[in-house]
Amino acid sequence: MASLKVPASVPPPYEDAEQLHKAFEVSCFFFSSSSFAGWGTNEGLIISILAHRNAAQRNLIRKVYAEAYGQDLLKDLDKELSSDFERAVLLWTLDPAERDAYLANEATKRFSSSNWVLMEIACSRSSHDLFKVRQAYHARYKKSLEEDVAYHTTGDFRKLLVPLVSAFRYEGEEVNTILAKSEAKILHEKISAKAYSDEEIIRILTTRSKAQVNATLNHYNNAFGNAINKNLKEEADNDFLKLLRATIKCLTYPEKYFEKLLRLSIKKLGTDERALTRVVTTRAEVDMERIKEEYHRRNSVTLDRDIAGDTSGDYERMLLALIGHGDA
Amino acid sequence: MASLKVPASVPPPYEDAEQLHKAFEVSCFFFSSSSFAGWGTNEGLIISILAHRNAAQRNLIRKVYAEAYGQDLLKDLDKELSSDFERAVLLWTLDPAERDAYLANEATKRFSSSNWVLMEIACSRSSHDLFKVRQAYHARYKKSLEEDVAYHTTGDFRKLLVPLVSAFRYEGEEVNTILAKSEAKILHEKISAKAYSDEEIIRILTTRSKAQVNATLNHYNNAFGNAINKNLKEEADNDFLKLLRATIKCLTYPEKYFEKLLRLSIKKLGTDERALTRVVTTRAEVDMERIKEEYHRRNSVTLDRDIAGDTSGDYERMLLALIGHGDA
Repeated sequence: MASLKVPASVPPPYEDAEQLHKAFEVSCFFFSSSSFAGWGTNEGLIISILAHRNAAQRNLIRKVYAEAYGQDLLKDLDKELSSDFERAVLLWTLDPAERDAYLANEATKRFSSSNWVLMEIACSRSSHDLFKVRQAYHARYKKSLEEDVAYHTTGDFRKLLVPLVSAFRYEGEEVNTILAKSEAKILHEKISAKAYSDEEIIRILTTRSKAQVNATLNHYNNAFGNAINKNLKEEADNDFLKLLRATIKCLTYPEKYFEKLLRLSIKKLGTDERALTRVVTTRAEVDMERIKEEYHRRNSVTLDRDIAGDTSGDYERMLLALIGHGDA
Repeated sequence: MASLKVPASVPPPYEDAEQLHKAFEVSCFFFSSSSFAGWGTNEGLIISILAHRNAAQRNLIRKVYAEAYGQDLLKDLDKELSSDFERAVLLWTLDPAERDAYLANEATKRFSSSNWVLMEIACSRSSHDLFKVRQAYHARYKKSLEEDVAYHTTGDFRKLLVPLVSAFRYEGEEVNTILAKSEAKILHEKISAKAYSDEEIIRILTTRSKAQVNATLNHYNNAFGNAINKNLKEEADNDFLKLLRATIKCLTYPEKYFEKLLRLSIKKLGTDERALTRVVTTRAEVDMERIKEEYHRRNSVTLDRDIAGDTSGDYERMLLALIGHGDA
């Protein structure tokens, strides 16, 4: 369930566009006057509009804005805002497929730290949404997503990430139990032999439907007495193993995957704003309520409170608005 | 250019459906009377209708037929027809994406001989058409195409075929010349070392846009004095090498790829009807005119004449109609 709160009565898009444009004008005009609190007002207005419109409404506002003022709303936001708040507003305002294409492209360029972003986009989006990301990638970068992923990765990471981002998984709930048993056995054999990047492991995780992967992992647990991720924990410093575990979690328990990502990004020394912003902007319209529930259960404190404790100013207000804190 | 000939004035779909239904009824009724030439009439009528309707028109006829007679036209055709003619009519009548899904599924089940079918579908269709095949595969088989391909292949074949069928290549004409040069060098190094299934070769051929692959292979030819397929010819009995050469040809010169397939299927001792039927039914609505031109140039005889010399009866008439022989 989405955390986004859209008011019962939304103004027409041209009114939203006009308000946004006014906010920019005010801030520019009074920029040199330190006694005028234009910056704050401006940002509050932006949050009050954009953080309470769904993807279709935001797209419409962008369209109307471009028609009315001959300018790209995103470029104007980029000019007017800064730092973490800017990134949150820009990412949020993008259409979900465009946003994922942007995040994925960014991830291909910063290899080691960002494998998780590519995996996360590939594993947590629906098959059709992932395909829309690939279309948006063509339109924006004049290349294919898998082309960039393959080019910028090597070895085991490439072996796993290229099929993950290229997948178009079947989405039915049908499960083949015989297959689940035989593939659980294959997984166990390969993991016992520490052949973590074996092509059979990759094949099973990257091509089977999520329902089928889940059935296979349940059989694994039943037959071998351990959840697969327990058996993948032996080597603490193996980055590929970490990615493999995250892949499995993201495919089978996305809300737990995102909970952990939020927890680590908030709890670590110095908040990881990139991860925090990414999770909030990409999940607010999808399953943030479920993730908040999981967060509360796992940390005995609400996500709202942890975000409020770890961030500040407009950035804090933007994130809290997106996770549904307070009224729309 | 398509070879399919659709008459200037096409009857409404309910009339076509009615004619097809009548043809079946006549043939059933008079089946035991050997003096009645119902079979011939029937099949002639089927050809005169179906072989002269485009994909949208055939879909409409199927829809109207199902509504009017409560039966699937394809099932009725299946009951009434037989052997090579039946296969040609059935394949042709299917929607292109459905047909490719059907052919691909068949290919996953007959591994060694049919790798070419999977490669052919992956490399000669547009990116969007290949995606439609993957959608049709979900709908028909409740699985994903790449899932079946990965499951039914192993080793080098899997390494090449899975990314080929999963690709969503960029389709713009933009070419990066620096990249083309550097990747031509990589290809040459790997081929010189006889590392034919090296992951860099696979990456370049399976992820780059067709325009980019073409530029890379042109640079290969310029820089190293040989077309790449010349350098891949050294080991005559290596099936993977054959598939690799076919992949390159299908990506860069599809009309030559199909010409050769037709040539081999007609010229070999005993016609290869499966390949012949596949090429005619899948290309009649796409680029068969271009393939016929290439065929004539390469064999000094027209494709029409070679098909007429090698096939007979209704099968011959169906193929000739599809390649645009005679009037619609």
